[in-house]
Amino acid sequence: MLKNRITQLFNIEKPIIQAGMVWTSGWKLASAVSNAGGLGIIGSGSMYPDVLEHHISSCKVATEKPYAVNVPLLYPDIEKHIEIIIKEKVPIVFTSAGNPKTWTKILKDEGIIVVHVVSSSVFAQKAEAAGCDAIVAEGFEAGGHNGREETTTLVLIPQVKQAISIPLIAAGGIANGQQMLAAMVLGADAVQIGSRFICTPEASAHSNFKEAILSSKEGDTMLSMKKTVPVRLMKNNFFQQIRDAELRGASAEELNEILGRGRAKKGMFEGQLDEGELEVGQVSSMIKQIKPAADIVAEIWNECIAEAQAVTKYF
Amino acid sequence: MLKNRITQLFNIEKPIIQAGMVWTSGWKLASAVSNAGGLGIIGSGSMYPDVLEHHISSCKVATEKPYAVNVPLLYPDIEKHIEIIIKEKVPIVFTSAGNPKTWTKILKDEGIIVVHVVSSSVFAQKAEAAGCDAIVAEGFEAGGHNGREETTTLVLIPQVKQAISIPLIAAGGIANGQQMLAAMVLGADAVQIGSRFICTPEASAHSNFKEAILSSKEGDTMLSMKKTVPVRLMKNNFFQQIRDAELRGASAEELNEILGRGRAKKGMFEGQLDEGELEVGQVSSMIKQIKPAADIVAEIWNECIAEAQAVTKYF
Repeated sequence: MLKNRITQLFNIEKPIIQAGMVWTSGWKLASAVSNAGGLGIIGSGSMYPDVLEHHISSCKVATEKPYAVNVPLLYPDIEKHIEIIIKEKVPIVFTSAGNPKTWTKILKDEGIIVVHVVSSSVFAQKAEAAGCDAIVAEGFEAGGHNGREETTTLVLIPQVKQAISIPLIAAGGIANGQQMLAAMVLGADAVQIGSRFICTPEASAHSNFKEAILSSKEGDTMLSMKKTVPVRLMKNNFFQQIRDAELRGASAEELNEILGRGRAKKGMFEGQLDEGELEVGQVSSMIKQIKPAADIVAEIWNECIAEAQAVTKYF
Repeated sequence: MLKNRITQLFNIEKPIIQAGMVWTSGWKLASAVSNAGGLGIIGSGSMYPDVLEHHISSCKVATEKPYAVNVPLLYPDIEKHIEIIIKEKVPIVFTSAGNPKTWTKILKDEGIIVVHVVSSSVFAQKAEAAGCDAIVAEGFEAGGHNGREETTTLVLIPQVKQAISIPLIAAGGIANGQQMLAAMVLGADAVQIGSRFICTPEASAHSNFKEAILSSKEGDTMLSMKKTVPVRLMKNNFFQQIRDAELRGASAEELNEILGRGRAKKGMFEGQLDEGELEVGQVSSMIKQIKPAADIVAEIWNECIAEAQAVTKYF
């Protein structure tokens, strides 16, 4: 068991956190990562309240280890989600996409550890001021929703590290042990990994989406929808429709009309690769195999330690 | 003196390379970096042939160490530049922005070491096939001209490393020793640093531009001109004109009309911060002080070694 600020805060063995991803990370993936010594996260952003309740109770049966729930703060039914999280005594909550002031104190008063996801030092400082216990700083290369300043992990982490005193988790562009060690050299106490964990049997994403990641190449994702809510997508027909509209100067309203409803479910959960929204990070092109989540945790951790022991070889 | 593939190829002491930057890196900066044990590069992209000749001969007077010239392969008068480089027996040439097939063999036949700058693994493989001796792989966070795929340094370097067998130099997002070590952990043999070296007394950039970098904040640069030649710029009035045009769907022709001629000179060399083009990387916000180039080389190197020796502390 590694002792650092994050493993001690969460009471986990390895500073590897699986990102809470819509349509992808339910109780099976979260419990598998937690059982492997990392921290698994249930992604509540794509769940109705009763579905979330089911995933939390199933997760508690599947693991005795700590786990977390990710809550996008702009979720329309957020009051119900928070109520369930408190009732089910979820130990750790990751909040994202919203103001950390609104819910942090309420959750902390219930004894819940609160971590907020940000994309800049300014937002990191606001989250620390709101009472959060730790920060996830997510770079431009990350999949899914993303910041407007487009700061990459390599540039973001050292600056957030300087800006806050609470523990720091790096996210975006991390899929192997070398990238994990690089993030720690930059000042992170732990890493959060999304895309790599999509390619596991435990992830609830559609197998078509998993296969699309395995066959994707460098440059196959791009940050899109910058006039509304920026999101990194795999390039497909839907992406191209949005891109063509953006290039001709379409308004946010027009883009939202093309987006329509249920696109993420269609792509990631139902496997409609042409017309669905496929949220994935730039590291997509580095992922070559579907593996059990526990094997991924062990592999990344072992690579990271081996690389750390070998670092002085460069000098 | 560190012995690795890059220090041995270039016969330098430290694997720190100063990027060849238009209007910024003449003989004073290049010779200062080379004298400090790194590799200094004269940026020929903003020089008429006679100016380049003057900078090369001055550099040879100012240092006995190896130095290089950067040649953007789309430079209109490139034949004259190549002729001068051969005549002056420049030991190392960095080529960028063009096809490495055209000039690599001609330069190598003259005994010149040739390095090509790329933004993807596919271009890296083409450069290796063209006979280049080493590759610079430059991530999305880098200043100035940039790739279309927007792959960040953290994601790009491990993939280029796997794609080629010749030495690899990482560029983009590197301004201190932690970032340098992170790049080496990812597989780089050396780093190329641009923005940090603008803030030196030796750089020929206008002091207004240097001061603008010192006072810049996170998020103050953005990749621009994606419909023509993508370039990372500091946000100013000129940038905003381009951005407004892009958001309304302006064509490449309209963007080039707004760009006009001589914008880079106006901004970086003449110090017109509002109307000039200010090419700088995302690390701009991490640069707090103007320092002699030799101090920067020593500082980054010492930080990198100290960090490498401390890495096992994380585990």
